[in-house]
Amino acid sequence: MARIKTDDKNLSRKDVIVTKAASLFREKGFKAASMRDLAEAVGVEAASLYNHIKSKTELLHDLCFNVANRFMHKIDEIEAEPISAIEKIEKLLRFHITEMIEHYEEVYVSDREWKHLEDPYLSNFQNQRRLYRKRFAAIIEAGIRQKEVKEIDAPTAVLIMLHAITGIESWHRSTQKISAEALEDNMITILVGGLTNR
Amino acid sequence: MARIKTDDKNLSRKDVIVTKAASLFREKGFKAASMRDLAEAVGVEAASLYNHIKSKTELLHDLCFNVANRFMHKIDEIEAEPISAIEKIEKLLRFHITEMIEHYEEVYVSDREWKHLEDPYLSNFQNQRRLYRKRFAAIIEAGIRQKEVKEIDAPTAVLIMLHAITGIESWHRSTQKISAEALEDNMITILVGGLTNR
Repeated sequence: MARIKTDDKNLSRKDVIVTKAASLFREKGFKAASMRDLAEAVGVEAASLYNHIKSKTELLHDLCFNVANRFMHKIDEIEAEPISAIEKIEKLLRFHITEMIEHYEEVYVSDREWKHLEDPYLSNFQNQRRLYRKRFAAIIEAGIRQKEVKEIDAPTAVLIMLHAITGIESWHRSTQKISAEALEDNMITILVGGLTNR
Repeated sequence: MARIKTDDKNLSRKDVIVTKAASLFREKGFKAASMRDLAEAVGVEAASLYNHIKSKTELLHDLCFNVANRFMHKIDEIEAEPISAIEKIEKLLRFHITEMIEHYEEVYVSDREWKHLEDPYLSNFQNQRRLYRKRFAAIIEAGIRQKEVKEIDAPTAVLIMLHAITGIESWHRSTQKISAEALEDNMITILVGGLTNR
C-alpha cells in the first residue's frame, strides 16, 4: 500500500491530508466530497486515511479552527500595537488579503463550509467568528472617535470590507491576472482610502 | 384545482411563478429545487405549472435575463448622462445596492446559478456579464484619465466593488439591521470615497 508522500519534511502526513481535503471541499463542497475522493487525491487507499484522521468532520474541524486561530492570533497582535486605528485596519486587511491569496482553499472552506461542523464545535466557531468581527468593528469605532475614520456604521464597514476581499475568488479564477501585490495595493487603496477621514 | 393567486393585478401568473422560483432557487440551489417544490410554493399542482412555463431551465433563463437586462438598460442610461465619472460610478453602485436590497432573490440567483443555463443562453449570458463589467471598468478608466479617480486597476476595482455589494446578503440575514438607506450610504461612503482622487 502506498504511503502518504510529503514533499516538505516539515509537513506531517496529517498536514498533507488536511491540505488535500481543503482543495477537495472547495471544489465539491464538504457534503458531496467523500473519503474515497480524498484517498484518491492523496494517493492512498481509503482505509489508510483512518490511521491519521477519525472522520471527514475532523478534517473540517481542523481546517476551520486552523484558519480561525490564525485570525485570532493576528488581531491579538494588532490590537496590542502602538499604532493608529487606520494603521491597524490596514494591517488587518492586508492579513486578510494575504490569507486569501496564499491559503485560498483553506480560507474559502472555513468561510463557506463551517455550517457543517457539529456542536460543540459549531457554536464555538460561530462565537469566534462573531467575536472577531466585533473586535474588528471596535478598532473602526476607536478610529471614528479619534476622527481618523469617517462617521460610518462600523459593523457594516466590516461586512463590506470582508466581502470585498472575497472578490479574490474571481482573481484566482481569472486568466488575465494582475500580480498579487497589485491586487493587494488596489484593495488597500480603495478600502482604507474609503474609510479615512480627510 | 387551485388557480395561481396574484395579489397584484399587474403581476401575471407567470410573474408570480418566476418570483417564487427565485426564492426557491436561492434557498435550495437551482439543481436541487424541483418543479414539485415550486408547485407547492405557488400553491398549485405541478401539472398546472406547465400551462405557464415549459421547464425549470426556462425559469432560470427568465430570472437571469430579466436581471441582466435591467443592468444593461441602466448602464446605457448612465453612460449617456452628462455627468462626471465619479457621479456615474456612484449612480451605478447605488443601482446595484438597490437591486440587491429590493430584488435580492432574483439578483442572488442570477449571480450564482447562471452556470446552469444551457447554450446558446449560457454563452449569451456570460458575454453580457463580461461586457457589463468592461463597460463599468471603462467608466472608471475615463475617471482616471480625468484625474477624478485614483490610479488603480479598473477591472480589479469593479471586482472589489461588486463583491463588496454582495455583502448585502449578510445584511438580509442579519437580525440587528441598520436601515436600507444607512446601508446604501455607508457603502457609497466607503467605495466612492475609496476611488475618489483628492
